[in-house]
Amino acid sequence: MTDGRAVEELVVGVIGGTGPQGRGLAVRLAAAGQRILLGSRDAEKCSRIAAEVAERATSAAGGAEVSVTGGANVDVAGAADLVIVAVPYAGHANIVRELAEPLAGKIVVDCVVPMGWDELGAYAIDVPEGSAAQQAAALLPDSNVVGAFHHLSATLLEDLSKPTLDGDVMVVGDDRAAMDTVQALAGRLPGMRGIYAGRLRNARQVEALTINLVSVNRRYKAHAGIRVTDV
Amino acid sequence: MTDGRAVEELVVGVIGGTGPQGRGLAVRLAAAGQRILLGSRDAEKCSRIAAEVAERATSAAGGAEVSVTGGANVDVAGAADLVIVAVPYAGHANIVRELAEPLAGKIVVDCVVPMGWDELGAYAIDVPEGSAAQQAAALLPDSNVVGAFHHLSATLLEDLSKPTLDGDVMVVGDDRAAMDTVQALAGRLPGMRGIYAGRLRNARQVEALTINLVSVNRRYKAHAGIRVTDV
Repeated sequence: MTDGRAVEELVVGVIGGTGPQGRGLAVRLAAAGQRILLGSRDAEKCSRIAAEVAERATSAAGGAEVSVTGGANVDVAGAADLVIVAVPYAGHANIVRELAEPLAGKIVVDCVVPMGWDELGAYAIDVPEGSAAQQAAALLPDSNVVGAFHHLSATLLEDLSKPTLDGDVMVVGDDRAAMDTVQALAGRLPGMRGIYAGRLRNARQVEALTINLVSVNRRYKAHAGIRVTDV
Repeated sequence: MTDGRAVEELVVGVIGGTGPQGRGLAVRLAAAGQRILLGSRDAEKCSRIAAEVAERATSAAGGAEVSVTGGANVDVAGAADLVIVAVPYAGHANIVRELAEPLAGKIVVDCVVPMGWDELGAYAIDVPEGSAAQQAAALLPDSNVVGAFHHLSATLLEDLSKPTLDGDVMVVGDDRAAMDTVQALAGRLPGMRGIYAGRLRNARQVEALTINLVSVNRRYKAHAGIRVTDV
C-alpha cells in the first residue's frame, strides 16, 4: 500500500530482478534514490546480484547512498510497497499466482511481453486473458495491476555510461491513483516520462509493440524505444 | 507496379480519400509533390474534395503545382501505382475485396485500425486474420500489402499552419522492396521518417496502438504520435 506517500518514499520490489530488464530498472531507479528489493527464486544468487547492482548504482549516483537488497520473490513481494513483475512470460502465470497473498493490497507493475521466436523472428503469443497485465490482474484480484516499462531497452538501462535515457513509458491501467504513482515512478528514470496510455484492456498492443522494437533493433542495429509526440 | 521507379514518380491512390485520414495524407503528400488520386464510392463528392485538397496543398507548397484528382475507388485503384487504403474498419473487407483485380501487382498500404467504442472508450476489435493488414493481404493475394500510417493524427495532417510534423511512420510487411518504397513515401511527409517495424504478422499491435494514442489524446488534450528512439 502506498498510503498516499510520495513515490520517493516507496520501497520498490522487482520480481525477476536478476534478469536483464529487472536489473536494468533496479539500477536506474536505485541510482535515482529509490529503495529497491531485488527478488528471485534463488535468494542467494539474488543477494550477490543485488550487491553488484548497488555498487553500480552508487557509482552512477556519484557516490550517494543507494539501497538495493536481494531476497526470495515471496519475501520481496511481502516487504515492498510496490512491486514490478519482470519475469519471462513462460513463468509469468505461475510466479504471479504464487505471490497473490503477499501482493494483496499493493500496486503491481507488469512489464512482461508475451513473445515467442521462430525462424521468421519474434511474434506475439496469444494470452487467454488478453495480455500479460490482464493475466496478472486475473490472478491478483486483491492487487492493483498496472502495465508499464515494456519498451525500455535493458541494454540501455544497464549502460550507466549514458546518464540520460530517451523515451517514454506507456502506462496502462484502470485505477487513477495507481496510474499516477506508476507514472511518477517512471518519471524517476532520467530523461523519461510516464505517459497515461489507456485502460488495462488495451495493454496487449503496448506489450506486443516490444516485438516490433525487436525488429527495429535488428534492422537498424539500435536499442529502440518509444517517444510519444505532442505530449 | 513501381518498376524500380523512384517514389517521387509514383502516382499514389488513396481509397477512402474523403475521410480525415485519407484527406490528411493526401494533402501532405500532394504538397510534397506526390501525384495523388483520391478515391471514394461517390466519385462526384470526391472530385469536389480533391479540388479542395489541391487548393490547400498548392498553398502549402508555396504555389507550386500539385496534382490531386478525385474519382471512384475502382478507377483510382486501377490508375494508381501504389494505393493507400484509409477506410473505416467496418467497410474494410468488402471494399478491399471488390478492388482485388485493379490492385493486382501493386503495393497496397493499409492504414486501417480495427477499433470499437463503448462506454469505457476505445478498444481493439479482433480480426480473424490477425490484423487489418493481414486481412487485406488475404483478400489481395496478387498485391503486395504493407501496413503503415496508423499513428498520424488526421488533425495535424490537415493543419497546414504547421509545416512540419513530429513522429515516425512504423512500416510492417514482408517484401523488402515494397517496404523500402513505403518507407520512402513516409519520408516525404515533412519531419517524418518511415521506420521498418517488422513483418506483417506483427501488424496487429501497430494498428491497435492507435487506440492507446486515442487515450493519450483524451488525457493530455493532445494529437499524439510515435517517435522511435535510437534510430
